[in-house]
Amino acid sequence: MSFPRVGVIGAGQLARMMAVPANDLGIAFKVFASTENDGANSVADYVVGDYTNAAEVLDFAKSCDLITFEHELVPQSVIRELEKSGIKVYPRSESFIYSQNKIEMRQKMAELSLPNPQWEISENGQTTLAFPLIAKVPAGGYDGRGVFVVKNQSELTELSQQIQGKLLLEEKLNFTQEISVMVARSPHGQAATWPATLTIQADGICVQTVTPVPGLPEKLAIEVQEAALKIAQGINLVGVMAVEMFIVGENFFINELALRPHNSGHWSIEGSLTSQFEQHLRAILDLPLGATAMTAPYAVMGNVLGGEKNDMYRPYLHLMARTPSLKFHQYGKEVRPGRKIGHVTMVGEYLLELQSEVEHAVDYMSGVIDE
Amino acid sequence: MSFPRVGVIGAGQLARMMAVPANDLGIAFKVFASTENDGANSVADYVVGDYTNAAEVLDFAKSCDLITFEHELVPQSVIRELEKSGIKVYPRSESFIYSQNKIEMRQKMAELSLPNPQWEISENGQTTLAFPLIAKVPAGGYDGRGVFVVKNQSELTELSQQIQGKLLLEEKLNFTQEISVMVARSPHGQAATWPATLTIQADGICVQTVTPVPGLPEKLAIEVQEAALKIAQGINLVGVMAVEMFIVGENFFINELALRPHNSGHWSIEGSLTSQFEQHLRAILDLPLGATAMTAPYAVMGNVLGGEKNDMYRPYLHLMARTPSLKFHQYGKEVRPGRKIGHVTMVGEYLLELQSEVEHAVDYMSGVIDE
Repeated sequence: MSFPRVGVIGAGQLARMMAVPANDLGIAFKVFASTENDGANSVADYVVGDYTNAAEVLDFAKSCDLITFEHELVPQSVIRELEKSGIKVYPRSESFIYSQNKIEMRQKMAELSLPNPQWEISENGQTTLAFPLIAKVPAGGYDGRGVFVVKNQSELTELSQQIQGKLLLEEKLNFTQEISVMVARSPHGQAATWPATLTIQADGICVQTVTPVPGLPEKLAIEVQEAALKIAQGINLVGVMAVEMFIVGENFFINELALRPHNSGHWSIEGSLTSQFEQHLRAILDLPLGATAMTAPYAVMGNVLGGEKNDMYRPYLHLMARTPSLKFHQYGKEVRPGRKIGHVTMVGEYLLELQSEVEHAVDYMSGVIDE
Repeated sequence: MSFPRVGVIGAGQLARMMAVPANDLGIAFKVFASTENDGANSVADYVVGDYTNAAEVLDFAKSCDLITFEHELVPQSVIRELEKSGIKVYPRSESFIYSQNKIEMRQKMAELSLPNPQWEISENGQTTLAFPLIAKVPAGGYDGRGVFVVKNQSELTELSQQIQGKLLLEEKLNFTQEISVMVARSPHGQAATWPATLTIQADGICVQTVTPVPGLPEKLAIEVQEAALKIAQGINLVGVMAVEMFIVGENFFINELALRPHNSGHWSIEGSLTSQFEQHLRAILDLPLGATAMTAPYAVMGNVLGGEKNDMYRPYLHLMARTPSLKFHQYGKEVRPGRKIGHVTMVGEYLLELQSEVEHAVDYMSGVIDE
């Protein structure tokens, strides 16, 4: 045995943050980037290529001992091509499908007797569900893209004609909280979760997370972690996965799966003994998983969205002086309005203070406030 | 303002660990390496060159906004050359001399009324101090090299003839503990310390550190931090510095200064809200310093020394399963007996457990024990 070489398809912020524990563990780390300027290129060996081109990906994979993904957009055909060539790929194509295809995911949750909202597949704008409802393009969407709130039949008919394919329709739940449970699982079958995370959304984008979920009844807090573990086993997960759920009163419903490190797990870099990025590496390498205990009672993460300010350095003068325990993570991306260009995290005991400082920091960085 | 480019002379483990907060803060980070295989080369842009060659270093420095050092071996003449060319260099040559020349350091401590052991400069093997005493080559030593325990006059005479130059002679203190206080200071004059760290040595090499120092009386714990702050101001420090001290009963004595991130501060990666590496960057960039509170009651760090095992990956199978909260840091160095090739850290509440697990891990990794 000696230090393995891990290759990641994708070179954005997730690969960039995964490079840190890779280096700490001595693991050689390569990324398959889309452009010369991808965020992870500055911290890892990189190759620029087209992840939909099986030959290019295969060529990259041959220089690694193991391949993993940073996003869901790598086609199943490409992943299967790697698997057929005898390359170790985690998560496997058979598992990855559940974060790529929302209909497959709903069917699997039903099979596992996990709580789905009411759902059905619609082909021609027909439905038995009540309006308003949620319509989802089965594959290819992320960060809220490909998800629509449909108010009435004429909107559904119109959408159906636009999409020209199957739609997944779901009951629009009147949820009280949106949460995410991160879970990791290794080929050996060892699995571990972190406490559930509250994801606070604005305009369909996550703006802040709080871990653990404030006010979540203990029974429910355990049930959602058990559900995440059940899914991990049920889909034969290898790696980390975010299980997004809705809380409605005392009940939870599965929303979506993301089979990769996830925005809702960024808090774990400072807030847990083992970050989601280190855990993903341990899991895919079939190493024993790390402890997931929190380092403080609360961890609050805020996404920095691009705004009118282009200079993300100058805000440090004010923010570091104001909040000496705030931790910054820049993704090395060009600022564009609404784009996630970084995040900040703060851990501690006093939730309201943490939330207020994190909110102030992201608003100041994106230019929403001036002081 | 925009993200600055920081260049580090040296590309070993310290530069490698400094790259992590540099990337998180969005700071462009370059290293001036000695060989193609230096540990930091895989995580940063690098140039290979000779740090004793002013022209080569100057050429590198011109591509950076700011230069700092990873080790004390860069000649004063080279640093002054950079300064004369108008390049920002931190720490400055006027401060850096105190970690390069032990006689200058003793004189400065005396000037600052800080407690030195008895000391004198010896030119021809003459001394007024009692034997056994400590003899130090004034410049060029590190990690215990250039430091000698001298038992009697004939040994001193012999050493003096070998060295053919001034020796710094010091009283051999019968100390109870060896400690280190890390301190950071910015050009603005903002300064911060961390709690003092116990450094446990074997054969002149630090094998384990414990933070805070167990059993250190509160009054003394404050005095040693005050002393570190006083030195930082007194030598006009910019960056981080380790102040190594001896504890003798209720008193402390200054041992040595290292004006850079230091082995005795590695615990701060997991054990403090702000690591020494992030703090060094904040300090040299004149950004407000980060909070230095600990994340747990105790942080224990163990140095992994090269032994008979060459494979540093296989030990993970046992160690990660045994101690899920142990954190590993590999330096990307070839294994050589006695060489520091990595470290492990564990934070928590129960000191004896932390020490025992850390000791087990480093012994297992270096092959001293098999299970």
